[in-house]
Amino acid sequence: MTHAPHSLTLADVARHLGATLSGSGETPIRGLATLRGAGPDQVAFVTSRAYLKDLAATRAGGVLLHPDHGGSCPVPRLEMNNPYLGYARLSQLFDPLPSRDRAGIHPAATVADDVRLGENVCVAANAVIEAGAVLGSGVVVGPGSFIGADSQLGENTRLHANVTVCHGVVVGKRVILQSGCVIGGDGFGFAHDGSAWHKIAQLGGVVLGDDVEVGSCSSIDRGALGDTLIGDDVKIDSQVQIAHNVQIGDHSALAGCVGIAGSTRVGRHCMLGGGVGLSGHLTLCDGVQVTGMSLVTNSIHEPGVYSSGTGAMDNHQWRKNAVRFKQLDDIAKRLARLEKRRG
Amino acid sequence: MTHAPHSLTLADVARHLGATLSGSGETPIRGLATLRGAGPDQVAFVTSRAYLKDLAATRAGGVLLHPDHGGSCPVPRLEMNNPYLGYARLSQLFDPLPSRDRAGIHPAATVADDVRLGENVCVAANAVIEAGAVLGSGVVVGPGSFIGADSQLGENTRLHANVTVCHGVVVGKRVILQSGCVIGGDGFGFAHDGSAWHKIAQLGGVVLGDDVEVGSCSSIDRGALGDTLIGDDVKIDSQVQIAHNVQIGDHSALAGCVGIAGSTRVGRHCMLGGGVGLSGHLTLCDGVQVTGMSLVTNSIHEPGVYSSGTGAMDNHQWRKNAVRFKQLDDIAKRLARLEKRRG
Amino acid sequence: MTHAPHSLTLADVARHLGATLSGSGETPIRGLATLRGAGPDQVAFVTSRAYLKDLAATRAGGVLLHPDHGGSCPVPRLEMNNPYLGYARLSQLFDPLPSRDRAGIHPAATVADDVRLGENVCVAANAVIEAGAVLGSGVVVGPGSFIGADSQLGENTRLHANVTVCHGVVVGKRVILQSGCVIGGDGFGFAHDGSAWHKIAQLGGVVLGDDVEVGSCSSIDRGALGDTLIGDDVKIDSQVQIAHNVQIGDHSALAGCVGIAGSTRVGRHCMLGGGVGLSGHLTLCDGVQVTGMSLVTNSIHEPGVYSSGTGAMDNHQWRKNAVRFKQLDDIAKRLARLEKRRG
Repeated sequence: MTHAPHSLTLADVARHLGATLSGSGETPIRGLATLRGAGPDQVAFVTSRAYLKDLAATRAGGVLLHPDHGGSCPVPRLEMNNPYLGYARLSQLFDPLPSRDRAGIHPAATVADDVRLGENVCVAANAVIEAGAVLGSGVVVGPGSFIGADSQLGENTRLHANVTVCHGVVVGKRVILQSGCVIGGDGFGFAHDGSAWHKIAQLGGVVLGDDVEVGSCSSIDRGALGDTLIGDDVKIDSQVQIAHNVQIGDHSALAGCVGIAGSTRVGRHCMLGGGVGLSGHLTLCDGVQVTGMSLVTNSIHEPGVYSSGTGAMDNHQWRKNAVRFKQLDDIAKRLARLEKRRG
Repeated sequence: MTHAPHSLTLADVARHLGATLSGSGETPIRGLATLRGAGPDQVAFVTSRAYLKDLAATRAGGVLLHPDHGGSCPVPRLEMNNPYLGYARLSQLFDPLPSRDRAGIHPAATVADDVRLGENVCVAANAVIEAGAVLGSGVVVGPGSFIGADSQLGENTRLHANVTVCHGVVVGKRVILQSGCVIGGDGFGFAHDGSAWHKIAQLGGVVLGDDVEVGSCSSIDRGALGDTLIGDDVKIDSQVQIAHNVQIGDHSALAGCVGIAGSTRVGRHCMLGGGVGLSGHLTLCDGVQVTGMSLVTNSIHEPGVYSSGTGAMDNHQWRKNAVRFKQLDDIAKRLARLEKRRG
Repeated sequence: MTHAPHSLTLADVARHLGATLSGSGETPIRGLATLRGAGPDQVAFVTSRAYLKDLAATRAGGVLLHPDHGGSCPVPRLEMNNPYLGYARLSQLFDPLPSRDRAGIHPAATVADDVRLGENVCVAANAVIEAGAVLGSGVVVGPGSFIGADSQLGENTRLHANVTVCHGVVVGKRVILQSGCVIGGDGFGFAHDGSAWHKIAQLGGVVLGDDVEVGSCSSIDRGALGDTLIGDDVKIDSQVQIAHNVQIGDHSALAGCVGIAGSTRVGRHCMLGGGVGLSGHLTLCDGVQVTGMSLVTNSIHEPGVYSSGTGAMDNHQWRKNAVRFKQLDDIAKRLARLEKRRG
């Protein structure tokens, strides 16, 4: 479904992936596709048993798969122990975006005089970069994106279009910020005087580690005093809200629509499902997984999988059960009473 | 509350709506309003029985209503079997936006040389349109909006301000994209090597059918290999997240804050309430409705209304019941034991 | 962690806060920090008992605290009955943002000829302001922000970068709009003709009172006919969705990811926790609090705290209980039967 800007042979691809080639390596390869969709100039892949049924009929130029799955493959094979990882590397080979970047500052961009730019920086039309900002080599700033005063972007970081990085934000290397996300908006802090709210100026910043990705329209708020801290290799999906002074440990992944309240600390290698909510001032240890749309209101000190809520059912049944939920304490007490009377 | 740029008579309005006029058609009409708020140069409407109580006292120049409801109307009537549809058509007649569009490319816009533009295209200040994009006749691109390389917009499609359409996105005719939405950001795909994440380049696109609307700050991610597909006449509210390779059938409507995980397929004429979450790789058949904030983790094969969760109650009561929820399996087993002992 | 642009003495700070100084007032103060982090030129603060343990070891130049907590303070004290309020005022004193604003219109901004501007208005690069807009004195419009035709911004209101204020929106004084938020996108209104949707043009506007704050990537939709109304001193966090014709009373606070459906009215001094959902056409009286991720489907007429849902637990336990939830009505009936047989 995609085609590389340049042509490779299957043997080139095998070398790039560190895969073991089985069959002819001379086939020219110009893209990748699913087993069903691939033509003779594309590589397909088998990343789980579920796809094996499509293997025999594939017309792909080569198939990337686990050594155990190669038996019935009708075309040359690229064997790897982790073919899903191979697919990831292969996909990057055929990504058209990097070849489109043009180094330099577009004449319709606005860059303050004292901004420090590394080599091969690309700044697109209508981007605005304020005083004191520092952009490492290979940074790409998409159209309409904004970088506030004194913020820093590490090497090879990419801001897509219409991204906002507020002032005093530190972004690591190879970070990807999708369109519409906002890094460093004010945290939500107010003091109440008995009748009205008084804003607490949010004087901290945000630090994003290396290899972080932030999805479309997500927001990571700046700290009240200290910084909001996102570790290395943290992957954040679209529509996520991370409040002030939250800390996320390295290699954790947050699916779409997650919301994390202020000062909560999430460990390393955690995974939060779509729509999960974490209350403020909690600690989640390393290796915690929370399933979709669960609400966590207490700290979690043991790795494992956690959940809340009730699965969807027919609305008519649900109404009857949801009413009973409101009687649940009463039901439990009546049951205990009956048990007691039985002796 | 609104006034048309031009003056119409009540008879003109009746003709425009295909309504049956009852009473004088000469009243000049310059806008529409509620029964209570309307003055003599405005049309009011009755779209449900609940509003009939306000009918007798209305000062409107005319009232749009169902033939069965006209009895006590003190002013000229516009009768239609679907007055809510009439209200929709009437509202468009008085929308001030289209009259403000000025065809042409604003001097502060940045449009690549090879972009193909139909007739009467409007490109506002600070919009950026990349190489290879195709805009049909009557397309409006709002201030600060971005259209990526090779994307296509069908006739009479409107992007409000600060909209992002990434590269390789196909948008149908008469589509409306509200401010801040992002179409075609990367899907959330990573392979894990046992210690770190590796990005899967998102090589697919997004296809929006004709007459789609996408709300403010919503995001529709591009596909991993194939495209994310949004059918004709699909209406998507604000703050919605649609993940990669999701498919939504024609005429479905998604309320605010909905989140749909990757590769899930929603049928035609479905309705998802506010905050609904759908897990990945599910299929919802045609005609499914899901009520607000429900989580769906299994495919649904029968049309109907589905729900999950528990309704809000006093926090003190809720705490007692929520604790019991954690004992529910135990409660059920104890009950079964008691029943058995009863014989 | 922050330093003021100008130097103050501790006595100056006491005067500014209206605090009672105890100890020498001559210490120069250049910022504020936590008890643990503060150096001798910074003020620290004790806003709750939980921090008292850090008091004895602080190196701060002065500590802001309640008169009851001053006993063991090793450094000069600033005593106030509401030290959290004092912290808020102090934080504003050291906010670097206002000192960076430069009055005037950036040459890369696009401002329509007939826009009315008060004194000391700042319009940053790539901002776009359409015809008929009115900006009060001291208004700051950040880079890439858009103000639609005929909208009004009261004195000293600040739009951060990439904010969208659509046409016909009225914004009060001292309002703060964080990056990526959208005020006045179309509400979600469609009439169904039995097979397809017909858009209802959203002809109302949005009115934001004085001292409102709206967080990053939040959206407040314009009314269908009348306006969406946000009262004075309403604080709205990031990723919030407020639908058409909602009304929010003065001094209410909405945490991140809240969603409010159309025409619902929230009273004064209400607090909605993160991820709360309110159905449409409800009324919440003054003083209602709803805890995180609760769904409210009925009006609330008594002040108090309300909740729904179930707390997170180990996934294995949860699965067993969630299955039982679907049997809850049956469980309740069986229990009643047993009770009856007991007589």
